[in-house]
Amino acid sequence: MRIAELSRRTGVPIPTIKYYLREGLVPAGERTGPNQAQYGEAHVRRIRLARALVEVGGLSIASAREALTLMFSGGLSELDTLGKAQYAMTPAREPVGEHERDEAWDDAVAEVDELVAKRGWQVKENNPARRTLAEALATLRRLGQDDYFALLDSYAEAADRLAAEEVEAVARRGDLDSVVEAVVVWTAVGDAVLASLRRLAQEAASTRLLGDA
Amino acid sequence: MRIAELSRRTGVPIPTIKYYLREGLVPAGERTGPNQAQYGEAHVRRIRLARALVEVGGLSIASAREALTLMFSGGLSELDTLGKAQYAMTPAREPVGEHERDEAWDDAVAEVDELVAKRGWQVKENNPARRTLAEALATLRRLGQDDYFALLDSYAEAADRLAAEEVEAVARRGDLDSVVEAVVVWTAVGDAVLASLRRLAQEAASTRLLGDA
Repeated sequence: MRIAELSRRTGVPIPTIKYYLREGLVPAGERTGPNQAQYGEAHVRRIRLARALVEVGGLSIASAREALTLMFSGGLSELDTLGKAQYAMTPAREPVGEHERDEAWDDAVAEVDELVAKRGWQVKENNPARRTLAEALATLRRLGQDDYFALLDSYAEAADRLAAEEVEAVARRGDLDSVVEAVVVWTAVGDAVLASLRRLAQEAASTRLLGDA
Repeated sequence: MRIAELSRRTGVPIPTIKYYLREGLVPAGERTGPNQAQYGEAHVRRIRLARALVEVGGLSIASAREALTLMFSGGLSELDTLGKAQYAMTPAREPVGEHERDEAWDDAVAEVDELVAKRGWQVKENNPARRTLAEALATLRRLGQDDYFALLDSYAEAADRLAAEEVEAVARRGDLDSVVEAVVVWTAVGDAVLASLRRLAQEAASTRLLGDA
């Protein structure tokens, strides 16, 4: 099919498709003329995946590229790939600069270690979510949101329960390719699902507590 | 203080501070010369808030500006402000185009209505999280991730429980200004906390189920 048909099929505008092609999120079509290319079903799927990761999951182009490369590198045979796919779902960060290492940062790093130990989670030192969690906690401390920290155990409990169900459901899939796809898509899009549900539930809880505004 | 001191105090680089100033996330300093301005403690706080929303919470500049404006508009006297602050935390979207209204979209919208009704949530029709949730669900359907949907009730249950605790904790704050601040900061940064915890718990659950990779 031509790019116009690809756009119609996926609901993604042509300029966005061209952007994904340029950025290597979607492989090039088969050239059929100086300004023409043909695309197939595989392109439909890649575009849908790219959009899911970038627009719904909020991943950077670089993270989405890394995840898609892992998903389509073929011959995946090691469970290690799973870990890599999952780590690619966490926003990459610059190393923490000297000027950012304040007391709040040191406390937050210690708090993350403590929380992981307390829950008995086996998590590698290089899991990038340690860093993003520490950043979030340090931010809350710097803003004096100390009363937030009483909720942290409930957050961890909720994450624990959801993760256990997710991993179990994903493991029910037969082949590794499809497991890796689920890890990538569920992790990225699941963030949006959870964030949306939390906002809906917050409005409901506010209304229950404070009455209709 | 001068901008260099402001940068040192907040750990935010000078170019980023200038960007926040240009974009109206942080109010201008007091001009003391053709190329000089003085800043105060209020600026330190605004920069920290702006950074929390944009860099940790992942909000767009426009959403962050809206939230900060609500927080600092002063004389907040209506609970309605709370709702506005909360809605500003959800990414703004273009109206759904004709070409995007496929079966998956219609199903997703119906699914959101059903889920909200089933949980007995009182949520206004214009809560933007309805839209972001429908988008995420439609995306999962289009990608054929049908086995994900079995987890949706657990997600909603987790969101419900967390939201109830959050709203209760926020309501314990005395004044409305500080309540609005918590709604904004906790909602935005809380997404990052939850996303990070979920990734840590996923690695732990994978390791439990599949052994160390």
